[in-house]
Amino acid sequence: MQPEELLKKIQGLAPTLVEYRRDFHTHPEPAWKEFRTTSIIVEKLIELGYSVKMGSEVITKSEMMGVPSDAELRHHMKQAISQGANPELVEKMAGGLTGAVAELHCGEGPVIALRFDIDSNDIEEVKDESHRPYREGFSSKNSKAMHACGHDGHAAMGLGVAEILAGMKEELKGTIRIIFQPGEEGVRGARAMVASGVVDGVDYIIGGHIGFKAAHTGDFICGTGKFLATTKLDATFKGVPAHAGAAPQEGKNALLAAAAASLNLHAISRHGEGASRINVGVMEAGQGRNILPPNAIIKLETRGENSEIDEYMVRESMRVIEASAKMYDVEYDIKTVGGTKSGESSMPMVQLLKKLAESMPQFTNVIEYCDFGAAEDYSHFMSVVQENGGIGTYYMLGSNRTAGHHDDHFDFDESVLPTGVELNVRAVLDIIANHE
Amino acid sequence: MQPEELLKKIQGLAPTLVEYRRDFHTHPEPAWKEFRTTSIIVEKLIELGYSVKMGSEVITKSEMMGVPSDAELRHHMKQAISQGANPELVEKMAGGLTGAVAELHCGEGPVIALRFDIDSNDIEEVKDESHRPYREGFSSKNSKAMHACGHDGHAAMGLGVAEILAGMKEELKGTIRIIFQPGEEGVRGARAMVASGVVDGVDYIIGGHIGFKAAHTGDFICGTGKFLATTKLDATFKGVPAHAGAAPQEGKNALLAAAAASLNLHAISRHGEGASRINVGVMEAGQGRNILPPNAIIKLETRGENSEIDEYMVRESMRVIEASAKMYDVEYDIKTVGGTKSGESSMPMVQLLKKLAESMPQFTNVIEYCDFGAAEDYSHFMSVVQENGGIGTYYMLGSNRTAGHHDDHFDFDESVLPTGVELNVRAVLDIIANHE
Amino acid sequence: MQPEELLKKIQGLAPTLVEYRRDFHTHPEPAWKEFRTTSIIVEKLIELGYSVKMGSEVITKSEMMGVPSDAELRHHMKQAISQGANPELVEKMAGGLTGAVAELHCGEGPVIALRFDIDSNDIEEVKDESHRPYREGFSSKNSKAMHACGHDGHAAMGLGVAEILAGMKEELKGTIRIIFQPGEEGVRGARAMVASGVVDGVDYIIGGHIGFKAAHTGDFICGTGKFLATTKLDATFKGVPAHAGAAPQEGKNALLAAAAASLNLHAISRHGEGASRINVGVMEAGQGRNILPPNAIIKLETRGENSEIDEYMVRESMRVIEASAKMYDVEYDIKTVGGTKSGESSMPMVQLLKKLAESMPQFTNVIEYCDFGAAEDYSHFMSVVQENGGIGTYYMLGSNRTAGHHDDHFDFDESVLPTGVELNVRAVLDIIANHE
Amino acid sequence: MQPEELLKKIQGLAPTLVEYRRDFHTHPEPAWKEFRTTSIIVEKLIELGYSVKMGSEVITKSEMMGVPSDAELRHHMKQAISQGANPELVEKMAGGLTGAVAELHCGEGPVIALRFDIDSNDIEEVKDESHRPYREGFSSKNSKAMHACGHDGHAAMGLGVAEILAGMKEELKGTIRIIFQPGEEGVRGARAMVASGVVDGVDYIIGGHIGFKAAHTGDFICGTGKFLATTKLDATFKGVPAHAGAAPQEGKNALLAAAAASLNLHAISRHGEGASRINVGVMEAGQGRNILPPNAIIKLETRGENSEIDEYMVRESMRVIEASAKMYDVEYDIKTVGGTKSGESSMPMVQLLKKLAESMPQFTNVIEYCDFGAAEDYSHFMSVVQENGGIGTYYMLGSNRTAGHHDDHFDFDESVLPTGVELNVRAVLDIIANHE
Repeated sequence: MQPEELLKKIQGLAPTLVEYRRDFHTHPEPAWKEFRTTSIIVEKLIELGYSVKMGSEVITKSEMMGVPSDAELRHHMKQAISQGANPELVEKMAGGLTGAVAELHCGEGPVIALRFDIDSNDIEEVKDESHRPYREGFSSKNSKAMHACGHDGHAAMGLGVAEILAGMKEELKGTIRIIFQPGEEGVRGARAMVASGVVDGVDYIIGGHIGFKAAHTGDFICGTGKFLATTKLDATFKGVPAHAGAAPQEGKNALLAAAAASLNLHAISRHGEGASRINVGVMEAGQGRNILPPNAIIKLETRGENSEIDEYMVRESMRVIEASAKMYDVEYDIKTVGGTKSGESSMPMVQLLKKLAESMPQFTNVIEYCDFGAAEDYSHFMSVVQENGGIGTYYMLGSNRTAGHHDDHFDFDESVLPTGVELNVRAVLDIIANHE
Repeated sequence: MQPEELLKKIQGLAPTLVEYRRDFHTHPEPAWKEFRTTSIIVEKLIELGYSVKMGSEVITKSEMMGVPSDAELRHHMKQAISQGANPELVEKMAGGLTGAVAELHCGEGPVIALRFDIDSNDIEEVKDESHRPYREGFSSKNSKAMHACGHDGHAAMGLGVAEILAGMKEELKGTIRIIFQPGEEGVRGARAMVASGVVDGVDYIIGGHIGFKAAHTGDFICGTGKFLATTKLDATFKGVPAHAGAAPQEGKNALLAAAAASLNLHAISRHGEGASRINVGVMEAGQGRNILPPNAIIKLETRGENSEIDEYMVRESMRVIEASAKMYDVEYDIKTVGGTKSGESSMPMVQLLKKLAESMPQFTNVIEYCDFGAAEDYSHFMSVVQENGGIGTYYMLGSNRTAGHHDDHFDFDESVLPTGVELNVRAVLDIIANHE
Repeated sequence: MQPEELLKKIQGLAPTLVEYRRDFHTHPEPAWKEFRTTSIIVEKLIELGYSVKMGSEVITKSEMMGVPSDAELRHHMKQAISQGANPELVEKMAGGLTGAVAELHCGEGPVIALRFDIDSNDIEEVKDESHRPYREGFSSKNSKAMHACGHDGHAAMGLGVAEILAGMKEELKGTIRIIFQPGEEGVRGARAMVASGVVDGVDYIIGGHIGFKAAHTGDFICGTGKFLATTKLDATFKGVPAHAGAAPQEGKNALLAAAAASLNLHAISRHGEGASRINVGVMEAGQGRNILPPNAIIKLETRGENSEIDEYMVRESMRVIEASAKMYDVEYDIKTVGGTKSGESSMPMVQLLKKLAESMPQFTNVIEYCDFGAAEDYSHFMSVVQENGGIGTYYMLGSNRTAGHHDDHFDFDESVLPTGVELNVRAVLDIIANHE
Repeated sequence: MQPEELLKKIQGLAPTLVEYRRDFHTHPEPAWKEFRTTSIIVEKLIELGYSVKMGSEVITKSEMMGVPSDAELRHHMKQAISQGANPELVEKMAGGLTGAVAELHCGEGPVIALRFDIDSNDIEEVKDESHRPYREGFSSKNSKAMHACGHDGHAAMGLGVAEILAGMKEELKGTIRIIFQPGEEGVRGARAMVASGVVDGVDYIIGGHIGFKAAHTGDFICGTGKFLATTKLDATFKGVPAHAGAAPQEGKNALLAAAAASLNLHAISRHGEGASRINVGVMEAGQGRNILPPNAIIKLETRGENSEIDEYMVRESMRVIEASAKMYDVEYDIKTVGGTKSGESSMPMVQLLKKLAESMPQFTNVIEYCDFGAAEDYSHFMSVVQENGGIGTYYMLGSNRTAGHHDDHFDFDESVLPTGVELNVRAVLDIIANHE
């Protein structure tokens, strides 16, 4: 396909991309509840001729983190069906095994993975005429769910890329693997996908994000690094209540165990080899003023400049929590509810995208590299690919926004959707062309 | 009136006492919301010829503790009216100034106070055929409100006592003052009543409780002591949120301030002169796992074997909370939401009740004295009376129960209501007879 | 022996009592180092015809608490010999097995135990003309050792009692057992003596103290109660040092473990059934400002209104210390270095001493009973005697003092020494006379 | 002077350098006690024709940190005189105002500063035949003082450089300023020197260290960076003692204040912009097990990747200490006893030294740059020079050692002393030659 032809085809797809995006925006589904979203995506991919895997083929149940209760999942499965999901596909996702992986087999050649995340936030979308989705009637129909981070756009681009690539199969080589990831919010989904093998054999991987540090339409950041490794933990403490006046010695104080844990967690030694973080973000404890408190929960996260430092923080945290429970003779339980590895884009891939972006007139401000300084569980895919000898990068696709990410007024400039599709498609072509 | 005549009159009142009690049981009102209860009581007392005070005459607004929000009070005022309260009387109680004091002036002689508490718990009553109030149709109509401590019986007895005494006015001397106290639960109401002068000039005061340590019908405990002084505090901490990964140094951590406060509050030195207690019963803090937590609240209580020790605990607590806020550079606020003095029955009054109870065949097990070992804000009335040269006691009127106090299955043996009325009336007569 | 004759004999002994006391005062020996003191006592007792036990016969090594190092003991053994102790006797006390028990067997009859404590404080005696021992040349010759509590007087009285009783053996019945206890300071010695059986079979036990709450010559307190149970613990923490700047993550912080222990020890729940105490009195930790601290020690004590409460405090403390070590991943060790049971005098014995004291003209102010409110390890002897069916009391023998106990200016009125001897002897006679 | 001539002259000086070094090694003087060392240096500098400043001309008293007590200083002044110091010079240093600055004025041109530190450690030198200084008779004569870091070599090199430069004055331009700094150990001296203006007007500054990361003779590191900023604090807490059993409520617990401070200091938020450190390295508290502890001291240090981060840590620490004192109602005092700024060598100076070192055959392993990762208060001089528009570097002069720095077996290869002199002299010449 000639470049002009490709461009024209993508431009022709623009209204469809907006349609996809707005449909996803209207039906947002948070982590592990992307039943309808996955159903729509899978049906389209099958229609396009992809070999599609889903359910337990792409999610290892034991590695899922932060999974909602069965009752909650069942509720969302029903809701998804009532909003047009295919009941048979939904049933395959029972237990929250959402997301899908599509492959296009094009003979010998490199395995190229493209990753798009599809979950929404669990935020209530603002109902306000100043907010375009509301004004134009595509704001969220689901309570406590909103696409406030742009993953609706990512999912739409993923489908656009799938459609374009399927239409030029004869020009491709190797294997194109498109990953539609659930549960990126809370960095919960990548681990279970990786465990099921979705990046096995991958030579090149590309992922990215609309907006973020590329704050304006026309910006493009070719590579990102210093993804912090992070782990999300919930610790619960279970003691024994007692009348605080009459017999305090008969109680086991879970509130004080949680308080001691919180203080001592923050006192974990800094690490001499790089940045570490700890945050006990939430504590809830107790039943009443005059009852020795028998229950407590703390929600915390650790971070590390690299995975080793994060692991150090987790190891220390586990021990501090256990010791705090022992201190007050209470039982405890720790659940890992999220987490990802650190990550760093591969320079050759950054250069490849840079060359490509500089050739695209839509980009007026091409930036080679930026630090992420936060966590995104794409880094989990990328670091495993790199450990196995592959390379990868994470781009940021500039887009004007109406508010910061995760704000209930968030909206973005949809004109960047075809640009994103073009970038992904041409990157695939360049990779194939350059692959020795 | 001859003893037999008095006994007969009281027996005749028995069905009315049950009626009162069940009416109050059906329409329970927690602290500072006793609009209907007060209205019913006041109307009856006026009808009986008492001089009745209410609203700001009996409650000093600035000394009220643990008052619900205006919106909540307004809601309950409306509910009270819809359940039969007199709108004019309710309006006098705006702001939660519930409760009433009735006086019968009988010439020269002692001032004798009888105190009955009238508020309910904020418990949801069980709906279960095994529970008589439900089975017989007089269980609570108000959500999150239930007479689970017997104050419905106390209020009924108070009206019974008022009726009997009004009918024998010519045989009485001095002043009979009947106090219907709101907000005993959470020990919130006595202070505001005392501040308004309701025990000024009192020579003798009697109060008591159905059940408690007098666990069976036929038991009677003549005096009670070692009421612990107590204070109830809410401390809030207000910091500054920050992204826990990117810029933790920009936050002010309210959760850690609350955790440090909790630990160090429990480390306040024991007191060499008697028992002290501290309990941080509830903590809630934080907004999300990855946000440096900018908010926290702790709900605590102190206790002391005497008021001085409780004051020591409060003074220390105030400083620990202030210092904890300073430790994490956050703002704080402390609200006193309840509290009462310690108390000890006066031996002469205990002896008077003992002689009386031993003469009443209903009592098969008369116990002179027991330790209370907890808090009841009657002790606030009694200790002020004693400080001013008067004497008082607190009795326990045995009654079979179906469950412990504050349990959602609580019910008691209504046959003790006339016994309680008789005891109060005869105690008044004995006091008058013995007053030099 | 006629009373007058007895009195005369005791009066004749007065100069000898002062001589004994001043000799002990000049050669004070702290806990487990009473080599010379014991040697002097044992030689005298043998001379008087007593059957004397010492060394491992009266001290169970494994139950000794707070024992000095071998080197220190060896040093004091040499010093004792250089100050006149019998080397053979000293050798029997190797390892600190000081103290002695003397028995006078007088046929059938009750076993009566009299207990005198003999150790000094480890205080440096003041060198000051205003201080009689210094002025008159009998102040301490041993550095960091001084009889500042009156045990020199106790030991002297014990020898006086032994002499008088030996001289009237034919008038006595049963067994007289005189216990010379080491290591009362720090409540360290009684447990090891009890374990060796020194109060086995005892029907009556008497012990007492010069001064204390009987502040003036002429005072006598017949019985004492509310001895607090107490336990003395040393906890050491052993971590790993690290350069605090370069590699703090490689260290294990013993200082923070000790700090966490200290705070959480003080936060142990108060006990609903009586007074409890905890005090971390001493902490030492660390090696230098820039080294992550690998070492720490805390010295603490618990107390309880009764032994159960003290045991509760010890149990909780043990767990808190273990948990604090775990919190910082350091090793720990807890040593029990002192402790005693709670105690309460037996009323019949109190009455016996009261009757006796009221008959002695030296006593102008006889007080039946007082609370001790502190710890004395006599209570260990007494409570074991009581557990086995015997009875006992603890008296206080009034004496004018020049300063408080444990003050480096402490001195007392020696004229009370014969009074104390008389009281003990006559108590023995009264017990024998009254024994059924 | 021709290069060969210079080299010859320096080689001729070698025995003198060793003599100087061994004399300093024999008479080590720790921070602020370098009375003899300074006296020897000043007399030599005057002899060489330098304009010399000392005492209050080079030390601003109010900025001195960690100064010993007057008594201690007086003792060392006497000792210095007894070891050959000039009494008049010593008197000028009263109060610990040690150190000196020498200037050679050579007309117009740059101001070039060379800095040498002269204090010893406060370590007891090993007495062991395996230790050359002991074996050859030049080990420390002063107790608790030893040159275990190589500053004896630095001082010797400083005198050597002074002698060579004085001998070639006509070839020089501008001003040569040689700084002999006291109190580098504990990073205490630079601040007081800088405050007195010793680096005012400096265009180029050079300092360095024997050994350290240049572990072998032949190594040379041209520039060093990432000096951590650090601050050393002593915090004392003063409470009120009380009998821990009888009246704990009357005490004010300094031990718990120090424990709370220690935990919460370690919980100070990590900083998002770079590495921070905190270490409470030492705690001592309390007087006895059964006394509520009225005294405590903690010795701590903060560090920061840059001075702003260290200042953040200090600011937070101050508040935590104050709040901990308030928590336990005790008084507190904080003393800054040491500290320095962060630092980074200037690249042009690094390059200049690199070119020079590569031309010197003594260096077989020239390394351009290394991270220091610790604190040295040379960084205080250098960063102030840089703030004022000058440039500077810090080199490491490789030398075989017998043990690590600060080890009581430390010794180094004296053959590097002339090499160090040559490097400094030629650096001065190169700077002058290159100065525009």
